[in-house]
Amino acid sequence: MSSETADHRRLIIAGSGIAGLTAAIYAARSNLDPLVLEGDEPGGQLTLTTDVENYPGFPDGVGGTELVNDMKAQAKQFGAEIEHGVVTDVDDEVRPFEVELNTGDTYTADAVIAASGASARTLGVPGEDDLMGFGVSTCATCDGAFFRGEDMLVVGGGDAAFEEADFLTRFADTVYLVHRREEFRAEDYWVDRLMDKVDDGDVEIMRNTELLEVHGSQEAGVDHVTLAENESGRPSEKLDEPGTETFDFDVGAVFVAIGHTPNTDYLEDTGVELDPEGYVNTRGSGGEGGNQTATGVEGLFAAGDVVDHHYQQAITAGGMGCKAAMDADDYLEREAPAEGEAEATAEADD
Amino acid sequence: MSSETADHRRLIIAGSGIAGLTAAIYAARSNLDPLVLEGDEPGGQLTLTTDVENYPGFPDGVGGTELVNDMKAQAKQFGAEIEHGVVTDVDDEVRPFEVELNTGDTYTADAVIAASGASARTLGVPGEDDLMGFGVSTCATCDGAFFRGEDMLVVGGGDAAFEEADFLTRFADTVYLVHRREEFRAEDYWVDRLMDKVDDGDVEIMRNTELLEVHGSQEAGVDHVTLAENESGRPSEKLDEPGTETFDFDVGAVFVAIGHTPNTDYLEDTGVELDPEGYVNTRGSGGEGGNQTATGVEGLFAAGDVVDHHYQQAITAGGMGCKAAMDADDYLEREAPAEGEAEATAEADD
Repeated sequence: MSSETADHRRLIIAGSGIAGLTAAIYAARSNLDPLVLEGDEPGGQLTLTTDVENYPGFPDGVGGTELVNDMKAQAKQFGAEIEHGVVTDVDDEVRPFEVELNTGDTYTADAVIAASGASARTLGVPGEDDLMGFGVSTCATCDGAFFRGEDMLVVGGGDAAFEEADFLTRFADTVYLVHRREEFRAEDYWVDRLMDKVDDGDVEIMRNTELLEVHGSQEAGVDHVTLAENESGRPSEKLDEPGTETFDFDVGAVFVAIGHTPNTDYLEDTGVELDPEGYVNTRGSGGEGGNQTATGVEGLFAAGDVVDHHYQQAITAGGMGCKAAMDADDYLEREAPAEGEAEATAEADD
Repeated sequence: MSSETADHRRLIIAGSGIAGLTAAIYAARSNLDPLVLEGDEPGGQLTLTTDVENYPGFPDGVGGTELVNDMKAQAKQFGAEIEHGVVTDVDDEVRPFEVELNTGDTYTADAVIAASGASARTLGVPGEDDLMGFGVSTCATCDGAFFRGEDMLVVGGGDAAFEEADFLTRFADTVYLVHRREEFRAEDYWVDRLMDKVDDGDVEIMRNTELLEVHGSQEAGVDHVTLAENESGRPSEKLDEPGTETFDFDVGAVFVAIGHTPNTDYLEDTGVELDPEGYVNTRGSGGEGGNQTATGVEGLFAAGDVVDHHYQQAITAGGMGCKAAMDADDYLEREAPAEGEAEATAEADD
């Protein structure tokens, strides 16, 4: 489809999580008529959390989905449009940008905000998907406090798993860290630190062990899990071998911490700089003022978990979304003023 | 008072605006028992705004004071303590830090978050204070949309005044920029840009003019203002001179944009790096992970308008407050573990 026939927008926002919706609220209030493309997971990762207790402004907590829906309504009220569709390609060698969707549609846009987030990796074992948000979680910071006093299982062997296990000792009776191999990918710092907690009896490490199934119900939460162990590692690939032991194990919550993948495939052929894991490098802050969400491509901004692999909270994603909209607005006023404004400037130059 | 008799806290947060309260919510949930010192303006600048329409999650808007109070309740519920008091000095040459208040009390603290904000400068003319939040505002982004179709007065001659005047043309019938001198401090970029809007008839510039009084009521808002003009500048100092004309002028809203002053006096004798205007320089972001709110002093973090002189929104302040709490938590776990944890570590080392 050529850009001449494509529908044109001042601003397209890829992603409808907290970053994208906050950008939409601010951009709509700046009369940019933003189009939000919902992406693969409409509403983003917060919809995986049942109760959000740490988003400032809700002393009694708020449902993840409710908060996202309220932000959607707020963005729409100021004129944002929200549509189904996943951005599959951005052509940044032309202006306006050409933005291709998985629906086959193409839009042109004067500016683009990448707010397509990151997706938590999951195991794909039975029970995991059903009980996600009901005892299974991919975010200890979000959900750890709901299971105070319970035994908790953390799956993973990298920094994230160690950090989550460490954090969960605040709430858990015992934290069980399950890792499919003997060695950990996590930094020594984290391993040493968690080993101290093993010595204290707060953490137990189960090496060469894999989670095969989560049992429970959405009403009563997680009841127990099925694990497999084989001292040579990766037991799930060796279930029929004699050295493999399969057993049930009682825990009240399961945290899957095997990493996130930023959703940045569509940026790979652009001038946007991605780090080795695929996260977007932005100009960033340092007290020196605006344009913090700028990427290497003029007019293309990024916000939320597509950038942030550390804090990853609703309020931090919202903050970046707001900045991206303000940065995009500055850019548009400077580089691609709206038609009426462009004419006025041309007249004034006469 | 010596540190031996002072009350000790894991974390002290200076300031109770959005940044400080968000930091308190997160720090309390991390069991850091934070003490929040309210500062000169409890609740911060958001309490100057009657209706907040752009804080994500409230499609029908929320009162500025209501939002702040909800955040206070949320922080308290997780264990934060909020006290009256303004931090007047932080001794960063000792650990724990010694934190002095204007009440005469001294606390010691393992970590400190500076979230003391910035205060909008005001003129001090009659009517200004009474009608603040009722037609008089120090924030065009917050309040501009409430006065759609009205004539608006902006006071100031710097970048902020020009930016606000420019922004307000989206909503105003005519924006009148009132500046007490002939020349502007604002960048040429902003002056050129606003001059184009003067040519379009959207903006009128009143040089050598000062605002003397705002007339109106909290019920009906701003009715009109009294201005003085003298072609040699600074008319308010020359009211009795023959060249000075004093006159009433009808406008529906007044935006005072004569700058902000960050509240960072108490940091001047510390190792925290301040920029020439007094804003705190933090490590900042750039996609490289955590510790973004770190200052030049280990264990002393900064968040909100004390750092940010550009975006200055509730959601961006909240984002930074959350980051500061997470950064402080990482620091405390690493450098100053809680007593139980320190003993456990010592035992484990045996």
